[in-house]
Amino acid sequence: MDESVQNEYFELLKFKSVGADPACFRDCVDCASWLKRWLGKLGFEGELLYPDAPAQDASAPRMPPPILFAERKGDEGTPTILVYGHYDVQPADPIDEWKTPPFEPTVIDGRVYCRGAQDDKGQFFAFLCGVRDFLAKDGAKPTIKVVLEGQEESGSEALESMALSLRRKLAADVLLVCDTSAASGMRPAIIAGLRGVSHFTVRLKGPNRDLHSGEYGGLAPNAAQAIAELVATLHHRDGSIAVAGFKDGVEPPDHDELRAAEVSTPSKEELESDIGCEPVGGQIGKTLVQRVSFEPTIEVNGIHSGYGGPGAKTVIPCEALAKISMRLVPGQTPRSAFEAVRRHLEDNVPRGMKLSVEDYTPGAAGFRLPLASPLFRLAENVLSEMDGRGPVFVWDGASIPVVSAIREASGAAPLIVGWGQAEDRIHSPNESYSFVQFDKARDWALRIVSAIVG
Amino acid sequence: MDESVQNEYFELLKFKSVGADPACFRDCVDCASWLKRWLGKLGFEGELLYPDAPAQDASAPRMPPPILFAERKGDEGTPTILVYGHYDVQPADPIDEWKTPPFEPTVIDGRVYCRGAQDDKGQFFAFLCGVRDFLAKDGAKPTIKVVLEGQEESGSEALESMALSLRRKLAADVLLVCDTSAASGMRPAIIAGLRGVSHFTVRLKGPNRDLHSGEYGGLAPNAAQAIAELVATLHHRDGSIAVAGFKDGVEPPDHDELRAAEVSTPSKEELESDIGCEPVGGQIGKTLVQRVSFEPTIEVNGIHSGYGGPGAKTVIPCEALAKISMRLVPGQTPRSAFEAVRRHLEDNVPRGMKLSVEDYTPGAAGFRLPLASPLFRLAENVLSEMDGRGPVFVWDGASIPVVSAIREASGAAPLIVGWGQAEDRIHSPNESYSFVQFDKARDWALRIVSAIVG
Repeated sequence: MDESVQNEYFELLKFKSVGADPACFRDCVDCASWLKRWLGKLGFEGELLYPDAPAQDASAPRMPPPILFAERKGDEGTPTILVYGHYDVQPADPIDEWKTPPFEPTVIDGRVYCRGAQDDKGQFFAFLCGVRDFLAKDGAKPTIKVVLEGQEESGSEALESMALSLRRKLAADVLLVCDTSAASGMRPAIIAGLRGVSHFTVRLKGPNRDLHSGEYGGLAPNAAQAIAELVATLHHRDGSIAVAGFKDGVEPPDHDELRAAEVSTPSKEELESDIGCEPVGGQIGKTLVQRVSFEPTIEVNGIHSGYGGPGAKTVIPCEALAKISMRLVPGQTPRSAFEAVRRHLEDNVPRGMKLSVEDYTPGAAGFRLPLASPLFRLAENVLSEMDGRGPVFVWDGASIPVVSAIREASGAAPLIVGWGQAEDRIHSPNESYSFVQFDKARDWALRIVSAIVG
Repeated sequence: MDESVQNEYFELLKFKSVGADPACFRDCVDCASWLKRWLGKLGFEGELLYPDAPAQDASAPRMPPPILFAERKGDEGTPTILVYGHYDVQPADPIDEWKTPPFEPTVIDGRVYCRGAQDDKGQFFAFLCGVRDFLAKDGAKPTIKVVLEGQEESGSEALESMALSLRRKLAADVLLVCDTSAASGMRPAIIAGLRGVSHFTVRLKGPNRDLHSGEYGGLAPNAAQAIAELVATLHHRDGSIAVAGFKDGVEPPDHDELRAAEVSTPSKEELESDIGCEPVGGQIGKTLVQRVSFEPTIEVNGIHSGYGGPGAKTVIPCEALAKISMRLVPGQTPRSAFEAVRRHLEDNVPRGMKLSVEDYTPGAAGFRLPLASPLFRLAENVLSEMDGRGPVFVWDGASIPVVSAIREASGAAPLIVGWGQAEDRIHSPNESYSFVQFDKARDWALRIVSAIVG
């Protein structure tokens, strides 16, 4: 990678653009402004968009990070290309598990270590560098639109709420997204489906204060024990989900989808050496590919109550919370899944506790794309030129909540190809992205845009 | 209360003597040194004691707060009185729930608000002020020994390990302890029994890092879900303890004990207005007095895993911990109860998790004292002079782990009378102690020491 590109990349990474954290709002605005200027140099007209009144309700009491929309008019009769990415990143904690400062890009053995080095700053920026390479060439230029949001890691609420009102701006023929992984061994992967995601917070309140566990032990209900018992009711002992109605309407994969998905799913051994323990999540009796690609999940992202410090504090905690996210598959709507879980929680409130379910963020439903589309054929050819093995089709367990919203608003056909690898450790301490991956993403952008223009 | 006493009391309260927190070690030493000087003015010879090598093993890797031992030789032929108290206090968190600074004594409506205002700085200091009043009088003076430790809130490990080697120092006829509550309405209460206490930390480790809940959801085991499911196995749905062998050998109370205990146990209504929720802890079908005085408990003091901050972090947590304490009754030993729980935890380790049980602190067994002892008669008379209603006998659900150890080492008969009330909120934010309570404790000390000397 030439030095000037690396300098730009590192400048972008240094912004602490944690979209979920109100304390980082300023960093998000600065990051979006930096990108607007960067695109401006390529002839894009950019603007920072903020949601209007309707989005400012109880579910979004604070100003969300801005959405950068930029457009570069192209020649008559060329298709319109829409590029989506997100400049927000996951929080850096647990900070003390980082070997290098989380917002200080550090190169070790050809990898850049930094929060956002891959997800998604590294991937979309590499892609935009490829677009710049394309624009530097002779030949017809399509109209290119870029939408970069700052809330993807926390539900994309603003962009989703605005998507329909932005119909005219977003209208395009193809939607290009670089925010996913290649198959193991960097074999190219085309996303044929994504799971949806929703999240919320569960809070239990019991006594009016933390209580002495001797004076009140046996008398007062314990919020820490209660949250444990409540959370434990969400799954059966075999790992299957115990929430009535949660899986109603789920559309199972057909035979072609299951077979194609097997190709790109890592083996039990690969997984075990990656995560450092047996891959025993999900339901006993289902295959790995079923569990990660075609089954929904209810995941406890955090549980907190009472004392956790050094020594002991022998209290009966009065309050507890659990942060919960769900991965959704076609046939489930975020609302129907959430209502099923809420009903379950309300039906299982432990004795003496008051339940509240807070901060529900609908996110988006999951979707699957038709395997036999012209766009998929075009992408298959380009990717076969880049890699003799040709691409695999992936039904990714992860989510890009807004893609379905943008897809609907823009009318564009999504083409989702990214160059992540498991060792990038996105969402974890010591996230990284290699120069090799960066250059692949850049080359892919140059080639696919060229191919689309024809 | 005269101003000079209040100033001394407030000086004592300002020491951040959180014995469980290594960061507060210096404050503990300063606090003990202050008390040594204070007793010195009354003619006590004092010394700060630290455990010797044997206690410095893996279970106590750091230097514990010092034990203050002070002795004032008395006249020939008088009984020897041993006074026990603890100058350490519970941690102040959750800090932000304090209406006044936790280590800044603040007087509101005749109550002193401060961590330790009651438990136990306020109670033992009021008692020592009564001892000073006694010493100021004419007449025979007994030998008085004072032992004040700095680890009561976290298991009294140092003093317990040293008790036997301190036999000669501690040898006494009567052991006076002011670290408990009066019955509701400040009716005097003599402790006829205490529950024991032990505590430990449970840790689960699964994946080698926090994982992306989309990429790995359905594949990787979740430590937050696992700790919830593990903790939930400790109790049956009716609130009874589900740990095999935990209650083996428990000695049920006899009829006199049960009847006497009923007198001092608050009603369901009193409890509910005190704690702000239904008193539905413990086992359904047992009475309040059974549950708090004669039944053991397994209490979750804290549970922590994964993300708990603003917004969302959709991770699969890789690690989780639960801090657990047990209240024990006669017939259980700390070791037998702990081994039963450990076996239970090992038998129920969730799939994909590694279990470790850490920081086990044996604390002490529970005990019950004979109702018809001469010392109890003497105390009954004194307390009947102080309050026409006379004393009640209480089998306190709380613990003073070292009392049994000191009792054994000193050969003294324990007389445990304190002046706490539920509204003091010990162990909770906004702990307080009223001047009325302080003066009662001070008067009690003057009267009972006089009566013992006869």
